[in-house]
Amino acid sequence: MALVNEHFLKLPNNYLFADVAKKVKIFRTMNPRVNVITLGIGDVTQPLCPAVRQAMHLAVDEMGTEEGFRGYGPEQGYDFLRDAILKHDFLARGIHLDADEIFVNDGAKSDTGNIQELVRWDNSISVTDPIYPVYIDSNVMIGRAGTIEDGRWSNVFYIPCTADNNFIPQIPKQRVDIIYLCYPNNPTGIALTKQQLRQWVNYALHNDALIFFDAAYEAYIQDDDVPHSIYEIKGARKCAIEFHSYSKTAGFTGLRCGYTVVPHEVTASTLNGERIHLNQLWYRRQCTKFNGTSYITQRGAEATYSPEGKQQVRETINYYMENARHMKDVLTKLGVEVYGGQNAPYLWMKTPNGASSWRYFEEMLYGAHVVCTPGVGFGPSGEGYVRLTAFNSHEQTEIALDRLSKWLG
Amino acid sequence: MALVNEHFLKLPNNYLFADVAKKVKIFRTMNPRVNVITLGIGDVTQPLCPAVRQAMHLAVDEMGTEEGFRGYGPEQGYDFLRDAILKHDFLARGIHLDADEIFVNDGAKSDTGNIQELVRWDNSISVTDPIYPVYIDSNVMIGRAGTIEDGRWSNVFYIPCTADNNFIPQIPKQRVDIIYLCYPNNPTGIALTKQQLRQWVNYALHNDALIFFDAAYEAYIQDDDVPHSIYEIKGARKCAIEFHSYSKTAGFTGLRCGYTVVPHEVTASTLNGERIHLNQLWYRRQCTKFNGTSYITQRGAEATYSPEGKQQVRETINYYMENARHMKDVLTKLGVEVYGGQNAPYLWMKTPNGASSWRYFEEMLYGAHVVCTPGVGFGPSGEGYVRLTAFNSHEQTEIALDRLSKWLG
Repeated sequence: MALVNEHFLKLPNNYLFADVAKKVKIFRTMNPRVNVITLGIGDVTQPLCPAVRQAMHLAVDEMGTEEGFRGYGPEQGYDFLRDAILKHDFLARGIHLDADEIFVNDGAKSDTGNIQELVRWDNSISVTDPIYPVYIDSNVMIGRAGTIEDGRWSNVFYIPCTADNNFIPQIPKQRVDIIYLCYPNNPTGIALTKQQLRQWVNYALHNDALIFFDAAYEAYIQDDDVPHSIYEIKGARKCAIEFHSYSKTAGFTGLRCGYTVVPHEVTASTLNGERIHLNQLWYRRQCTKFNGTSYITQRGAEATYSPEGKQQVRETINYYMENARHMKDVLTKLGVEVYGGQNAPYLWMKTPNGASSWRYFEEMLYGAHVVCTPGVGFGPSGEGYVRLTAFNSHEQTEIALDRLSKWLG
Repeated sequence: MALVNEHFLKLPNNYLFADVAKKVKIFRTMNPRVNVITLGIGDVTQPLCPAVRQAMHLAVDEMGTEEGFRGYGPEQGYDFLRDAILKHDFLARGIHLDADEIFVNDGAKSDTGNIQELVRWDNSISVTDPIYPVYIDSNVMIGRAGTIEDGRWSNVFYIPCTADNNFIPQIPKQRVDIIYLCYPNNPTGIALTKQQLRQWVNYALHNDALIFFDAAYEAYIQDDDVPHSIYEIKGARKCAIEFHSYSKTAGFTGLRCGYTVVPHEVTASTLNGERIHLNQLWYRRQCTKFNGTSYITQRGAEATYSPEGKQQVRETINYYMENARHMKDVLTKLGVEVYGGQNAPYLWMKTPNGASSWRYFEEMLYGAHVVCTPGVGFGPSGEGYVRLTAFNSHEQTEIALDRLSKWLG
């Protein structure tokens, strides 16, 4: 008899964003004439920039010719893209990587979920709390997270990030095997300075731990002392795997492209103490279970590094960050406790009067017709907060702020 | 200390096609002026058809407008594509499926590798031998395959397909939990008739086993009594998950799109005997670890179902099958024992004089400058065979056949 992987059954029935979508759908069905504005899911809204479109048109035409047609590409991505990544995302910041340390993928979500396959099922993991749910859920599915009680997994060490510590995670006193960090942070919108991130690298080196570092929002960084890559920190090449995405940078949420950096020096240990290079393991994993990213999409990603591409991408990011600044201004003036939005497209808002996240989500939906994301969906320390995103258009953001002002005022 | 997943270390050091590529590279370096012709890796060569290109151009332009831009799509694929699949791939054959039984993906390789996440790590698996290596390797990585000795994994039940049984797998006497079937078969090129496949469905129903059915090559079927989908067999909805791909159908190897069918009735059991619907589990898996396929690629896939698209795809498949027929004719006349090529783009060739697969691969490379794939790379029963593919151009195939004729003659 085929037996099911029962770890899946431990997962709460629904996925955060699916729950949100369901509740919004019910509201829309009941109120078909109301224009609901979503500041909920972290999805971009601005069109693909001209440089990317042009590159993709060219690639489509190329694939229509005998000479230009490309079949299976390298599982780890085409050299043209890996070279552009090395040059623009790393060398420009003084970071030297080799091309075979870069693995182009179909988006950071896949790889932040898949990376845990490389380590033993019983390694302990640690997350900052609140956090992007995929990190934990992908560990639940393999049994590594243990069992859930009161919204906490038994084998997950939670590092609370709340107003009390300015949302800066404190280095744990105990040791853990694996630490997930996402900075600039989703959902709080808070960034770590170089000095703050250095403490984590030192902790990992000292404890022989691994850091899985999600840098999906690095393009939104405005402050000089906030690192764009963990490899700006000395020693990180020995302990950190980093995830990048074109989703929020260049509006690729619907195109699916990102990349993972696995430096040659990163190792994990066998039970016998032998050190194994994770770069080789990841290569093998990708060659077996992945078949590369669309050539056309990779050409689009490459175009984000051309002078025009860079300029156009920068304009879109500035567009969203203008939203973020404006939202923070308006909400702050309304007396709302609101964080983030300075180096990230997310604002983290304390619910007034200690309302629960889900309750406040519903109040905002029914009262202001604005969709946020309940903070508790990102972890226990997210209770009492909601996340707002800066990804909507100026016009819709303005209308949403008007509604929130009237509703809160 | 972070511990490595030691199951990865059991894998033979290299992946079959990477090994082949390495040996070809060495030859090319030593013989830079020789035009090596590859009939090795199963990759297509003909350009994307006009209908697909047109649809993708439109989609790129759409993504450049405020109204047409699409961010995150549904993880399980857009309705426009799922509806086209239902109508053309299934309803046209009298198979009724629901849209939420279809999960669009980034190619069948990913999902044939990922599907094993849904079942317990200690379920027993069975494969026809020889077989596409991903089925076993993805099970090795989680520990399900056991340990390897003499090219055989301890927890894998091999069903030999050799000239002795006309490459038709015999129903096992023992029971297994999970069976991987790929028909028309890669690498042997042999198809199962409806009657033959029915025995497997009955076996699975009788033994409460699951069938993972890879239908990546169904578009190449020429014979009427060969089923295009396992759901043409009564009862398959209860026991089979099926994988489709646009790679070999419409030349999408470089675009990455396919789909997985998980019928509502397919279940696996908990230890307590509770039946769990795998459709829900797969949905959850995909929502957590996957973020959908590129909108542009999905529009391209949809275009393969338009009247022009269908016609153009059919022409390309006929083109490859003309190669297959011609190759089989020529090789047969040369006195070579060769199988397949009738309902599949693969020919399975017995090495003369009992030469080993790898030895014959090297002899053919150095003697005829033609690349094949060593059969033993697909499993122990592949020893003494090589695989040839019909995916090259008419011209290159013709040259390759000339060379093989001289070399063998």
